Parts: sequence; C-alpha cells; structure tokens
Amino acid sequence: MTKGKTFIISGPSGVGKSTVLKELFKGREDLYFSISATTRAPREGEQDGVHYHFIDVQHFQELIEADAFLEYAEYVGNFYGTPKKYVDQAMNAGKDVILDIEVQGALQVCNKRPETVRIFIAPPSWDELERRLKSRGTDSEEKIQKRLVRAKAELQTADVYDYFVINDSVEQAVREISAIMLAEHCKPAERMKILSE
Amino acid sequence: MTKGKTFIISGPSGVGKSTVLKELFKGREDLYFSISATTRAPREGEQDGVHYHFIDVQHFQELIEADAFLEYAEYVGNFYGTPKKYVDQAMNAGKDVILDIEVQGALQVCNKRPETVRIFIAPPSWDELERRLKSRGTDSEEKIQKRLVRAKAELQTADVYDYFVINDSVEQAVREISAIMLAEHCKPAERMKILSE
Repeated sequence: MTKGKTFIISGPSGVGKSTVLKELFKGREDLYFSISATTRAPREGEQDGVHYHFIDVQHFQELIEADAFLEYAEYVGNFYGTPKKYVDQAMNAGKDVILDIEVQGALQVCNKRPETVRIFIAPPSWDELERRLKSRGTDSEEKIQKRLVRAKAELQTADVYDYFVINDSVEQAVREISAIMLAEHCKPAERMKILSE
Repeated sequence: MTKGKTFIISGPSGVGKSTVLKELFKGREDLYFSISATTRAPREGEQDGVHYHFIDVQHFQELIEADAFLEYAEYVGNFYGTPKKYVDQAMNAGKDVILDIEVQGALQVCNKRPETVRIFIAPPSWDELERRLKSRGTDSEEKIQKRLVRAKAELQTADVYDYFVINDSVEQAVREISAIMLAEHCKPAERMKILSE
C-alpha cells in the first residue's frame, strides 16, 4: 500500500475555502481532514474529536514539549494546534491528509516536514474577494477592508506555496486540487520505489 | 488567455505509450501532438504534416544551424527532429503540447527549455513489460531481452523526469497524465501573474 501524503490548504477569509473542502471530501474515503486540538471551550453543538480535540492548557503544554504538534498558535487567548498523531495514523493507513491552516502554520509544518505539499486558494480578483466578503453580511466595512489588506499581505508571503488554485468556480477548484494530489503521487521518489521492488 | 505548456512523454518500448496517448487525445482540442521532421522517405500511406514533416538532408541541416529544433537525433541513417516552430505556435494559441520522445531527446529539450515537464511512463513491473513485448509477437526472444536491458538502463537515467506514470491500466495512466498537466498549470509562476494583474 502506498503511504498517504499531507496537503496544506490555505486561503484568505472569504475565498470560499470551506465550500471547496466540503465538495472535495464528498465520497472520498481516501482523504482525512486533520482535526485541530484546542484549549478553547466547546461551543454549543461542538463534539470532541469531531470539530476539535478539546484539551486543557496543561495537556497542550505537554504536547508542545513532546514535539507532538506539526504546528500550533495562539488566537485570542486560546491555543490551537495540529497533532502529529492523527496525521501520521491516516498517512500510514494510505490516506491523504488535508490540513486547513493559515500561512504561519504552513511555514511551521514545512520547517518540520518539507515534503508537505502547500496549496493556496486565491480569489479570481481582489474585487471579487471584496464582493464575497460583503455578500456574507457578517463583517463591518472596516473589518472587510482589514481582511482585504491581510489577504494581500498573505499573498506576498505565499511564494512558499507549491500550487495556486484560483477559486473561480467551486467545481474547477475541486478538480484542480484533486489533480494536484494525484500528480504529487506521481513524483519519482514514490514511484521509483515501486519499480525497484 | 493562458499560454500552453510543453510535456515530454517517454517510456520504454512495449510499455503501451501509443495506446495511452491515443486515449489522452480523445476529445481534447486543447492538446497538440508535436509532429517530428525527418529525412526518411515517406512509407506507404504516410502523409506530410500528419505523420511527419518530410524534408531533405540539406533542409534538416539548415534547421540545425538556425537552432530551429528542440532536439534531434540520427536513427538508422535518418535524421529526426522536433521543430520549435509548431510547438511555439501551439503554445501561443493556448494549447498544451505533447512531445513523444526518447530519454536522450528529453535531455536536449530540457537543456534548452528547463521549464518543460517530463513524464516517464513505466511498466507496473519488469515481468509485465516482458509479457507485453512477447504478446506483441513482433520481436525475437533476443530482441525482447535487448529491449528489456535498454528499458532498465533508461530507467537508471530517468531521474531527470518530473513524474512517473505506471501504466497498469490505460484509464488510470490517462487520468494521471491529465492530472499532472492540470497541476502544472497551478504552479505559482503562472498563477501569480493572474493575481498581480
């Protein structure tokens, strides 16, 4: 059995990443979505091991010391991290793993595991990203402008990404991500092993 | 319009490359199959500009001097080469170009144009390649053994290839080549241009 690979999928707020990921996972038993650990308290309806692995700060600290995270960060007073354990279990079971993380987290993962494939989902244009953020109706005009500035700044550091998927249509974005994942399994390192057996 | 890319597809004799390429091109108006120039005389039924561009030795020599070939070689007293002209025309028209060439030719192309993507079609196993060569019924046992040795030698130099497609089933091989082509269009160099416009 071929071992799975890990794929980071990042993208600015409003780009439509959640919709794309939801479509990508439809009927794909061979994919594993990495669930983060967090010290934040569960919200109504959130289940441990489904939405997050809910753990306390002391446990989180122990996991950091044991180098058990691929990446972690603090956000508004709570800690969030990607446990190596479940990622490795899935890859060893032959599944490809999707990490839905930010640019900073992506840099951490790639320092530890340079073989991780980085995909950045970008908007078709900045005007379109602004339109999408406005149509959500959840943010103030000021917050939308802040998100746009952050998105443009993120793209400046996004040259560490291996691939760019433009989310023009969800269908095409899913097709491109699937193609990238399959193409990565055709890289020599993996395939040469098969032929030398 | 996005410019097309050039993809080299190589593989040992008997691996089933022709069948895979035939399937790949079905209904794909966006692909261009590069037609070689040759000094060999046309065989019965061969058409100029369809099977080959048939030219004389003096013309071939002029094209070499004008650096008009991506690669060229001599084979049993005849010359064969890939004219840049048609490849560039197709790429400028937004088409992806397929070059069906050998490992030596692939090296020449990549010296001139390192951005060319190299795909090697490999057999699922050496036993299977031997079985396929035998089932064609065209070669003597000695010739089959020679082809096998050459195939193994080729694979030793095949680390210059970017991707390996194992031709286990034609359908899967075509799916993998298509995925590689789409994934290559998601590389940052091409996509960052779109977002900086």
